Amino acid sequence: MDVFQAMVEMRAMRRLKPDPVPADLIREVITYATHAPSGSNSQGWRFVVVTDPAKRAAIGEYYRQAVDNYLATMNTAPLPHQTRDEWERLCAAVRWQGDHVGEAPVLIFPCLKGARRGLEHATASRALAASVYPAVENLLLACRAKGLGATLTTLHFGHEAAIDELLGLPADAATFAMIPVGYPMGNFGPTRRLPVETVIGWDGWGE
Amino acid sequence: MDVFQAMVEMRAMRRLKPDPVPADLIREVITYATHAPSGSNSQGWRFVVVTDPAKRAAIGEYYRQAVDNYLATMNTAPLPHQTRDEWERLCAAVRWQGDHVGEAPVLIFPCLKGARRGLEHATASRALAASVYPAVENLLLACRAKGLGATLTTLHFGHEAAIDELLGLPADAATFAMIPVGYPMGNFGPTRRLPVETVIGWDGWGE
Repeated sequence: MDVFQAMVEMRAMRRLKPDPVPADLIREVITYATHAPSGSNSQGWRFVVVTDPAKRAAIGEYYRQAVDNYLATMNTAPLPHQTRDEWERLCAAVRWQGDHVGEAPVLIFPCLKGARRGLEHATASRALAASVYPAVENLLLACRAKGLGATLTTLHFGHEAAIDELLGLPADAATFAMIPVGYPMGNFGPTRRLPVETVIGWDGWGE
Repeated sequence: MDVFQAMVEMRAMRRLKPDPVPADLIREVITYATHAPSGSNSQGWRFVVVTDPAKRAAIGEYYRQAVDNYLATMNTAPLPHQTRDEWERLCAAVRWQGDHVGEAPVLIFPCLKGARRGLEHATASRALAASVYPAVENLLLACRAKGLGATLTTLHFGHEAAIDELLGLPADAATFAMIPVGYPMGNFGPTRRLPVETVIGWDGWGE
């Protein structure tokens, strides 16, 4: 698949079929993730891949609670650039994902070793994140190109200690996302974004 | 270009020609950047694109000092997975970039509005970063596919207040990277990474 098509058509695919995804396909999309850059080429990432049904169910229950909270307190009105219809469809998809994420066949947690302390320092937190989210984007694009649905989610941070324990994370490691992966119920299609000129500042911040 | 080829061949291209890059090409790679996901589809990013020679020279001087410090105190020995030769080539390329980045025709600073306070909180810092570094990866891949060299750098954080002022950032905004862009002196080629099985934990952290 063309790289620009993959970027334009990669969207949050929240409604997933429960059908299993072959382990080799998961290995392949993670291989592409690891071709992303990392600071000093440190490759300090680890991808925890959860397919165990009991673990997925437990994580799914935490996630459902996090979605309850998100929709009740954090995402309660459309953003300035969203129509009410777009926003309601987004909320419905998030709600569906909250109720079903434990049934997604694969949950991928991109993690970094030794990251825990730096997350609360303005410079370190960005330098660490810069060494894992590029890999996350490669993972999402690779899923799109392979016909797998995926979403970059972070609401599990609301139950982080419990999930870290469930995943067996070392004390100094941290998850950076939870990416449910599976075959999508819906269709891929192009995303729409703000006009590019409105997000560029030429030679300074601008407007 | 095939999406997987772009991922595998996108590498830090630090040695850039000073030849200008057309503004339309910069707009195009930033357009693809904006197709990345962002939390609640907030699209809170802003891409500050510096081509002004005096601003580039001033930023370049700060960056040179940051590279001096990085090579003297932060990257002083090969990582366990690096050969000494790989490490020495990396250091030489970083040194070259430190001495010449002000001559790169374009410096792109991906920023987020309203990010400043959250950078020092473990949850917020990751949620914010998750809404900008995926776009950075798209930008890097788009540059690769268009034949432009680019590098994800963060050493400018060492002189952040001065650079924020130079860019005219609002007090609550923050840069997340500095990406020098230009036509590369060297050739693109595949990156080598750790074997994927060593970075996967199946159903838990593992080894």
